[in-house]
Amino acid sequence: MDLKAYTDRLARKAATARWSLTLASTVAKNSALLKLCEKISANRDFLLKENEKDLEAARRAGQAPAFIDRLRLNERRIKGLIEAARTVAGLPDPVGEVIAGYTRPNGLRIQKVRVPLGVIFFIYESRPNVTVDAAALCLKSSNAVILRGGSEAINSNLALYKLIREALKEADLPEESVQMVKTTDRAAVGLFLQKAGQIDLVIPRGGKGLIERIARESKIPVIKHFEGVCHTYVDKEADLALAEKVSFNAKVQRPGICNAMETLLVHEKVARRFLPRMAKRLQAAGVELRGCPKTRKILPGIKRATKADWATEYLDLILSIRVMSSLDEAIEHIQKYGSAHSDAIITTDLQAADKFVQEVDSSAVFVNTSTRFNDGGEFGLGAEIGISTDKLHARGPMGLAELTSYKWVVYGQGQIRQ
Amino acid sequence: MDLKAYTDRLARKAATARWSLTLASTVAKNSALLKLCEKISANRDFLLKENEKDLEAARRAGQAPAFIDRLRLNERRIKGLIEAARTVAGLPDPVGEVIAGYTRPNGLRIQKVRVPLGVIFFIYESRPNVTVDAAALCLKSSNAVILRGGSEAINSNLALYKLIREALKEADLPEESVQMVKTTDRAAVGLFLQKAGQIDLVIPRGGKGLIERIARESKIPVIKHFEGVCHTYVDKEADLALAEKVSFNAKVQRPGICNAMETLLVHEKVARRFLPRMAKRLQAAGVELRGCPKTRKILPGIKRATKADWATEYLDLILSIRVMSSLDEAIEHIQKYGSAHSDAIITTDLQAADKFVQEVDSSAVFVNTSTRFNDGGEFGLGAEIGISTDKLHARGPMGLAELTSYKWVVYGQGQIRQ
Repeated sequence: MDLKAYTDRLARKAATARWSLTLASTVAKNSALLKLCEKISANRDFLLKENEKDLEAARRAGQAPAFIDRLRLNERRIKGLIEAARTVAGLPDPVGEVIAGYTRPNGLRIQKVRVPLGVIFFIYESRPNVTVDAAALCLKSSNAVILRGGSEAINSNLALYKLIREALKEADLPEESVQMVKTTDRAAVGLFLQKAGQIDLVIPRGGKGLIERIARESKIPVIKHFEGVCHTYVDKEADLALAEKVSFNAKVQRPGICNAMETLLVHEKVARRFLPRMAKRLQAAGVELRGCPKTRKILPGIKRATKADWATEYLDLILSIRVMSSLDEAIEHIQKYGSAHSDAIITTDLQAADKFVQEVDSSAVFVNTSTRFNDGGEFGLGAEIGISTDKLHARGPMGLAELTSYKWVVYGQGQIRQ
Repeated sequence: MDLKAYTDRLARKAATARWSLTLASTVAKNSALLKLCEKISANRDFLLKENEKDLEAARRAGQAPAFIDRLRLNERRIKGLIEAARTVAGLPDPVGEVIAGYTRPNGLRIQKVRVPLGVIFFIYESRPNVTVDAAALCLKSSNAVILRGGSEAINSNLALYKLIREALKEADLPEESVQMVKTTDRAAVGLFLQKAGQIDLVIPRGGKGLIERIARESKIPVIKHFEGVCHTYVDKEADLALAEKVSFNAKVQRPGICNAMETLLVHEKVARRFLPRMAKRLQAAGVELRGCPKTRKILPGIKRATKADWATEYLDLILSIRVMSSLDEAIEHIQKYGSAHSDAIITTDLQAADKFVQEVDSSAVFVNTSTRFNDGGEFGLGAEIGISTDKLHARGPMGLAELTSYKWVVYGQGQIRQ
C-alpha cells in the first residue's frame, strides 16, 4: 500500500466533506445517527462475528484479560452503542448556537456563533464502543473525522464503520464525513500528523508513550488525553465513614479508568483511626497497598512505596498511601507528583475545602466525593470523546461544545471606524 | 551570554511566579496596574529618551517610515499606554469567574471556574505600546509572562519593563510575574520554544515568516496571530453609497493593520455603476489599484492583478479588485485565497447576507460594515493581546477571558459512582 497516497486521499476527502457538513441540517445529522442505531441493532450477529476475530487474535497474542475485556462486544455493549448514538442524536445541535450576543454603542450587533472545528484526526485504544461515540459526536458537531482505532480492534471497527457509512449515505450526508484508517501500519499515523492545512485537530487517547510521541511529531494542534495520577486527601477534619466510602469507590469501582484514585493521602491526626479499617476493606477487594514509612507503622504488613510509586498511574488494583502532616504538604505532594487530572479532598472544614479547591490546579477538583465522577456523562454533557488533560481549548470532559470553535458575526448599517 | 542558562532561569522564575499570581488578589493586581500608570506618567522624559535611541538606530538602519512610526513613542502614545493599563485595571477579574454552575440529579454541585493558563511566552513586533498592553492583560489574568519584543524596540521596552517591575514590587506581587528577554539574540526564542513543561502557551505576533517558524519549532501550544487577507464583497443588491463608504474605510483608515481590506470583490451587475466612483475616491487617497480583466474594462488605467495578488496581504495602500458573476463565486474566492481573518458583505438582500455569514468561515464576518472593526476594543472586550487566526481555544480578538482556562469544581456529600 502506498501510504502517502492513501493518507493524502483520506485527508483530501475529509477536507471536502467538512464543507458540506458545516451546512448540514440538524435533521439530517440526527437521521444518520438514528439510522445507525437501527443498523447496529439489525447487524448484531455480523458485529459479534467480526469482533470474535479480534478476540481470537488477542487471545493468540496472549493479551491480558483486562485488555480482552475492553476489546469485547457482547449483547449489553451493543445496546450501549445504540444508546450512545441515540443520546447524541437527542442532544441540542451545538453548531449555530449563539454563545454571546450584544449591541455596541455604535449600533453594531455582535454575535459569537459556534462553528465546527473542521477535520479531526482521532487516535484511540482498542475499544470498539469508542468508534461509535467518536463518530456520533463528530458528526453531530459537523466535524469530519478520520478514525484510527487500536489495531487489535480492526475487524470490529471496520464492521461498525461499514454501518456508519451506510447510515450517512441513507441520510444524504457525505460518506466521507467519517473515515477510518484501514491499515494498521503505524507509519500512516505519522503521515496524518504532518497534514496541518487539512486537519484541524488531533485527539490522541491511550498510553502515555503513544500520546507523547504524537504530541512530539504532530504539526497539527493536539488535545492530549493523558494519564491520571489521581489523589484523594483525607483531611484531619473529615467524616471518616464518608472518607472510607468515597476512597473505596475512587479506587475499586473501575480501577482501569484514568479518573480512578492512585494515591491516598491521609492527615497524620486521623491516620491511626482511618487507615486500619480502610486498608482492611481495600485488601478484601484485592487491592495491593504500598505505603510511606508512617503508613507502614500503622499497617506494618504492606509494601514500601518508593518515589516512583507517587508518580505512577497503576490503572490496576494497587494503591499507594502517604501520611501527611498538613494540608499544605498534601497540596504540595499533588502539585509535585500528580498529573492535574482528578483530585479530591474529604473534609468538613470549609476553609480547608476552599484552599484545596483554589490551590490544586487539576482538570477537576472534588470535595467529599469520588474522583470517578470526572466524566462527561456524569457532568451532564451527554457524552464525551475523552477527558482532556490540556489547559488550552478544552479541559476535562470533552463533549459536543468542546468539539467546536466560534466565529464573530457583526451586523452593521454602514458603520465605519474612526 | 550563556543563552541556555539564561532562558532556563527566566522560565524557572516564571513557573514559580505563576503560583503566587494564581492566588493574588484583584486588589493587588489592580494596584500594580495603577502604580504603573503613575510611573509612566512620571517618567515621560526617560521613556522618550530611551525611545529616541531606538528611533535613531532605526533611522541609521534605513527602516521604512511606517516602521519608524510604529516604533515611535510621543506624548499622545504615552497617554495611550496609561489609558491601556488603566482600562485593564477597570475590567472585571476573569480569574475565579464561574462560567457555568448547576446541580446534578445525584446532588453533586458542579461549577466551571476560570483559572489562569500559567506561563505565556509572547513574541511581538517593534511597537513599545504592545509591551504595556501585554503585561497588563497577562497580569490581570494572573498569568506569568515572558515578553520578547522586536529587537528594534529594545531600549524602549527595557525602559517600560523597569517601570513594570517597580510597580509589581510596590504592589507586593512577584517581580518575575512579568519578565523580558533582554537579549536580541534570536536563538533565545528557539530555546524558550522547547520548554513545554514550564511554559503553557506561545503567542506570536508579527510577520508571516516569523509566525510560521515559531509554529514549526515550538514544543508548546501556539496561538497564531497570522496574516489578514481580508475581503469586502459588494453584492448585486447593495446600497452603493454605503458600499463606497465602508470599502473606503476598510482600505484606507489604517492600511497597515491586519483587518484592513486587501481585495474588493464586486458583483458584475453593479460593477459599472460602482467601480468608477469608488476607484476615483481610492486613487485620490493614494491607493494603487490592481484589477482582474473585467475590472480593467471598467477601469482601463489600472494595473493587472495576478493570481499572487489575490493571496497577498499588502498592509499598504494597494487594493486588488475582482468582478464576480455571483455570490457563490465570491464565497469561493474568499475560501480559496483568503486567510479566514475578516471578511465583509455589502448587501440589502437578507438571503445573501445569511448565506455569506454561514459559508464564509472567518474569525469575523461582517454585514454592511467595515472589516476594520475586528478588534478587541471595538468588540467590547476592553483590550486585546492580538487577533487569533487559529480556531482552537480563541478565535479573533483575544482579551482577558481568552488568556484563561477553567477547571471543574465538584462539591459532594459522599456521592459514589455506581
